[in-house]
Amino acid sequence: TDPTVAQAAREHQDRLTKPRGSLGQLEDVSVRLAALAAVVPAPVPATPAVAVFVGDHGVHAQGVSPWPREVTGQMVANFLAGGAVVNALARQVGATVRVVDVGMSPEAAAVVAAAPGLDRRSVRAGTGDITVEPAMSRAEALAAIAAGAAVAEGLLAEGHDLLVTGDMGIANTTPSAALVAALLGADPAAVTGRGTGIDDATLAHKVDVVSRAVGRATADGVTADDPLGVLAAVGGVEHAATVGYLLAAAAAQVPVVLDGVIACSSALVAARLAPAARAAMFAGHRSVEPGASAALAALDLVPLLDLGMRLGEGSGGVLAVPVIQAAARVLAEVATFDGAGVTDKTAGQE
Amino acid sequence: TDPTVAQAAREHQDRLTKPRGSLGQLEDVSVRLAALAAVVPAPVPATPAVAVFVGDHGVHAQGVSPWPREVTGQMVANFLAGGAVVNALARQVGATVRVVDVGMSPEAAAVVAAAPGLDRRSVRAGTGDITVEPAMSRAEALAAIAAGAAVAEGLLAEGHDLLVTGDMGIANTTPSAALVAALLGADPAAVTGRGTGIDDATLAHKVDVVSRAVGRATADGVTADDPLGVLAAVGGVEHAATVGYLLAAAAAQVPVVLDGVIACSSALVAARLAPAARAAMFAGHRSVEPGASAALAALDLVPLLDLGMRLGEGSGGVLAVPVIQAAARVLAEVATFDGAGVTDKTAGQE
Repeated sequence: TDPTVAQAAREHQDRLTKPRGSLGQLEDVSVRLAALAAVVPAPVPATPAVAVFVGDHGVHAQGVSPWPREVTGQMVANFLAGGAVVNALARQVGATVRVVDVGMSPEAAAVVAAAPGLDRRSVRAGTGDITVEPAMSRAEALAAIAAGAAVAEGLLAEGHDLLVTGDMGIANTTPSAALVAALLGADPAAVTGRGTGIDDATLAHKVDVVSRAVGRATADGVTADDPLGVLAAVGGVEHAATVGYLLAAAAAQVPVVLDGVIACSSALVAARLAPAARAAMFAGHRSVEPGASAALAALDLVPLLDLGMRLGEGSGGVLAVPVIQAAARVLAEVATFDGAGVTDKTAGQE
Repeated sequence: TDPTVAQAAREHQDRLTKPRGSLGQLEDVSVRLAALAAVVPAPVPATPAVAVFVGDHGVHAQGVSPWPREVTGQMVANFLAGGAVVNALARQVGATVRVVDVGMSPEAAAVVAAAPGLDRRSVRAGTGDITVEPAMSRAEALAAIAAGAAVAEGLLAEGHDLLVTGDMGIANTTPSAALVAALLGADPAAVTGRGTGIDDATLAHKVDVVSRAVGRATADGVTADDPLGVLAAVGGVEHAATVGYLLAAAAAQVPVVLDGVIACSSALVAARLAPAARAAMFAGHRSVEPGASAALAALDLVPLLDLGMRLGEGSGGVLAVPVIQAAARVLAEVATFDGAGVTDKTAGQE
């Protein structure tokens, strides 16, 4: 992004009829949106869309989640029927929900085999168990990245101007933690969380599973400076699709809101592959999952909401859409001191 | 509010297709909304409105703000023209903006003397300088409370189902801090902030001004167990109007979103006058002003947003409207495990 545009946006923000800095993070968001769009003010996003990428995980066999694998498919049916939380939140903010199978297990896929409305782009029927084998091959990771990018490009072609990440996949906080641990060199215990709400014993076991997965990848010769290799080794198909989705949004200079730890761990991969992609990323909220906060810190992104949420589906990202829109709208619509005839106490001072 | 309704709302929330507790504060908001409306689920608020109560402050003469008094009137003109931040944010969330003069100074009023659209309910032309005299008489405080209540009742009669507090009044963070200090017995230095952004020297002076105001009120025999007396002694006319607005919303069992320190200090007064009024209050955001956090803590209200905002006008309250709506919508619209055929891992466990 162009620093002169960011500077111009900041200067315009400082001429608006309000004390300078008084909108806090909203001002920073408005400046980043302008820099991304390369125009001051940036257009106000009007037609958001959330893509829910769905995958299953071989590591589920290790007992990292109390939820049965079939729930992935049942929840996809729920999304398609409009009955899940992400659907309700999307209706609230006027967002379109796109549900995309990129890696469901055969059992999960069977639940929605005949369902209309599912975007079927399966790259692989669930990942390998990352404690004993790679999640997927590099070629599969690339295919999933391409699938995610195609979804973003399709949404943009339909006129959507603000994208949100979403995900579904029982056990998918485990590969998320493994991605963060592997890419940041972080202690698995520091970046592994309770997911849907596991107890202390299961959490300790999950930390061990993440450690084994990262150790297994390292033993296979995968290093942190090889983000595609890490993604294939310990990630998930929905993570790979999210990486492509983020890269495509960034390439189109369209803002993309990150939801929780699946998105944040995928964003780490995307930013390692293409550092400029960070400019399009906005952190919707601070998930309870510690890996999300670790990834956001590494990306130098400040979350907009902090409501103690840990659902996924895109819920926290969708809920942040009005905040992003509001930030853009302030820069686009608020009168200046000169224009409104309001005395500016700080003219020439600050 | 009826605890059995809150319990029924919590039980319904726990049957929705998501891990229990995974929506964090949204779940608590949905339960409080149901308890307030006395029905599960509560109706989803669809037609929000923000009332911007305007007043001036005799304590401005003490040099607590670098902004000239005339700015109060200029900003009212800006509100009426739709050019201020609160207007832009209200357009984003579909809220009506009502601008109400309850206590503008003659100089400020002159700026908008002929302006259409201003709701003229002036009780007093600016307050007294609270360092040397009461802000207003008890009768004036009561009249302003009645004016604020009438504004709320009018908005409700027009069909608005979610109210937001707003304010305008150069220097009005000073009486806000004085109200919090007097009602909570707090150290003025702990509850006085930088308002629009004053420097260290002016902040130290402002703390002294607040201390003198509270000391003057105490010397006049006003005690913390007399909330109307404290309001008249060290408050503002817009604070008094906000108290009435909050009480009327609570009486109608309609949720009302608090903006920043003006609203939070007024909410303390309202809750002292009528403890049950707290049930209708939702803290829109955590203002940078320390008095806001102190008041919210005393009210046991958790803010929904924390974006480093300190503008007032109702901006932080309006920005929280979609979060409140989203919380209500989740409880109203999300499918249950039974209804959606999703396996519930926690059935009978938690």
